[in-house]
Amino acid sequence: MTMPDRLNIVPFVSVDNMMKLVLATGIERFLTELAAAIEEDFRRWELFDKTPRIASHSAEGVIELMPTSDGTTYGFKYVNGHPRNTRQGRQTVTAFGVLADVGNGYPMLLTEMTILTALRTAATSALAAKYLAPKEARVMAVIGNGAQAEFQALAFRTMLGIDRLRLHDIDRAATEKCIRNLAGFGFDITACGSAAEAVQGAQIVTTVTADKQNATILTDNLVGRGIHINGVGGDCPGKTELHPDILLRSDIFVEYPPQTRIEGEIQQLPPDHPVTELWQVIAGRAEGRRGADQITLFDSVGFAIEDFSALRYVRARIEGTGFFEELDLLADPDEPRDLFGMLLRAQG
Amino acid sequence: MTMPDRLNIVPFVSVDNMMKLVLATGIERFLTELAAAIEEDFRRWELFDKTPRIASHSAEGVIELMPTSDGTTYGFKYVNGHPRNTRQGRQTVTAFGVLADVGNGYPMLLTEMTILTALRTAATSALAAKYLAPKEARVMAVIGNGAQAEFQALAFRTMLGIDRLRLHDIDRAATEKCIRNLAGFGFDITACGSAAEAVQGAQIVTTVTADKQNATILTDNLVGRGIHINGVGGDCPGKTELHPDILLRSDIFVEYPPQTRIEGEIQQLPPDHPVTELWQVIAGRAEGRRGADQITLFDSVGFAIEDFSALRYVRARIEGTGFFEELDLLADPDEPRDLFGMLLRAQG
Repeated sequence: MTMPDRLNIVPFVSVDNMMKLVLATGIERFLTELAAAIEEDFRRWELFDKTPRIASHSAEGVIELMPTSDGTTYGFKYVNGHPRNTRQGRQTVTAFGVLADVGNGYPMLLTEMTILTALRTAATSALAAKYLAPKEARVMAVIGNGAQAEFQALAFRTMLGIDRLRLHDIDRAATEKCIRNLAGFGFDITACGSAAEAVQGAQIVTTVTADKQNATILTDNLVGRGIHINGVGGDCPGKTELHPDILLRSDIFVEYPPQTRIEGEIQQLPPDHPVTELWQVIAGRAEGRRGADQITLFDSVGFAIEDFSALRYVRARIEGTGFFEELDLLADPDEPRDLFGMLLRAQG
Repeated sequence: MTMPDRLNIVPFVSVDNMMKLVLATGIERFLTELAAAIEEDFRRWELFDKTPRIASHSAEGVIELMPTSDGTTYGFKYVNGHPRNTRQGRQTVTAFGVLADVGNGYPMLLTEMTILTALRTAATSALAAKYLAPKEARVMAVIGNGAQAEFQALAFRTMLGIDRLRLHDIDRAATEKCIRNLAGFGFDITACGSAAEAVQGAQIVTTVTADKQNATILTDNLVGRGIHINGVGGDCPGKTELHPDILLRSDIFVEYPPQTRIEGEIQQLPPDHPVTELWQVIAGRAEGRRGADQITLFDSVGFAIEDFSALRYVRARIEGTGFFEELDLLADPDEPRDLFGMLLRAQG
């Protein structure tokens, strides 16, 4: 299916079509191409409109809008975070997104983003690790084996060659689910009874737990010299995973400091603690990993530009496929001033 | 069709279904019920989260997100404004909106809002006039006969009994379109060659022109004592319709002062010029029209709460109708933590 030329039609990628698109592309190829789109956008970081997300908080959770624009294309993501949702069989986080043409304001894509966000988060983590992790890394600990874990594992496999996983979750069933799902992807997987056991021999440690609290998933004594920490789960106020002592020993890399200082691990540190922006490393303006003893930390919270990259990648990727529907979202009267006449004529 | 109970499905009202819904309801009944929903929300104004819209400006126009919440339900509208769009046969303004449940963050409705915005703008205008216009008003001048004009006329007819219209537009074809569209609605219509002619004998003057400039659609000498001005077209920085002298002689009523002082007619006045909030009049906390000589001005710019009212009205109105589709927008794995497994199993 080629893109519709009728002005009123917006391509829509449903959950079902997103799954088909990802599978038809191949999960690993999808992750690699998505990471390339993010890398490209991080290189031209300064072009983008950057606004912290607009949040509407309630006792139960938060609903956020995350807009950005590169001057030619505009994108935003709607995303909620409701920790108690799982009790009613709902997702904690759901999301959808829209891409639009800055020149005329017309939406160009509406898509589910729950699956897409898991993919972009993993792609961003692996992209950061490409610049920050030890080059010879083959072993990754994954602490927290929930909804994000497999996406992280696959992104690190395809982009960094990680083929040994050491998994730990306080809920053994989550680890078992992860092992089941990753069977057939060629990993050597060890299920570990503790975080301490999981980090043994790992050059990369990914923390991606779900509880909304200031937890201590990793204590300082577990963090050996030279490792790279991919801190994914500490991503909103009051939700962190790492002991502050780890932060003080690490070189910290972040997406967008004004947002990360509120939402990331570094909410535990003074507001002037030095951090490096990941885009500057990618653009060659700042150093990534300097040596074998350095502890690097990517304090990931997820930024609007990564969603933008994901939206534009999906928009390009669906071209020529059947993995979208045509949504009649925009009123388009034959004569722009005759909206009322269009309504009357619908009487038929 | 009753509302879906599957968690992943979001009801979607397309342009086509919105037109069918409005026509099946009856345009006038739709406007009246919509105004009642807005009135109800204006009475509980203080409950709402109020944020000025989040705008992304470019040389060609603007894309805005307008969120609000009453603590139970959350809504936002996406709307663009691109004055040069009509040159390519596109609408200057298009819009869509989303309603969501604050308790779990799940979207409950996605709908076109281009038509719905024209309806809510007209309903809000007529609602304001119910409190501000002279009681005996029967004659309305409508200056600017573009996409909004007929909606305004019908709202004022059904809610205030306006049955005589005096139409003027610098483009005679727009007036003729308006007369054609309103034939059969029982108005006595006079096409006027100038604004001066149009306002003769009118107790209500609606200005709803489209040009983005500081225009002077009405000069002070045209405004007689005792009239109500429904100023709709002056709604963004640099776009006004009324000579400042008119503002100085009028009692000015606005939706949300922080927004109207930037976007409304009162952008021409000092930032401390006294205005009355419309919701206070509706809630009985401030006076509306006081006497026969008073000039009242509703300086309308459109506020997020009106869109919220429109979204919740549509959500209630489609219940039990066939005027919506079911959109597979939210990923909903059987086991919330097994997003990856859901993806794998889609392989079929």
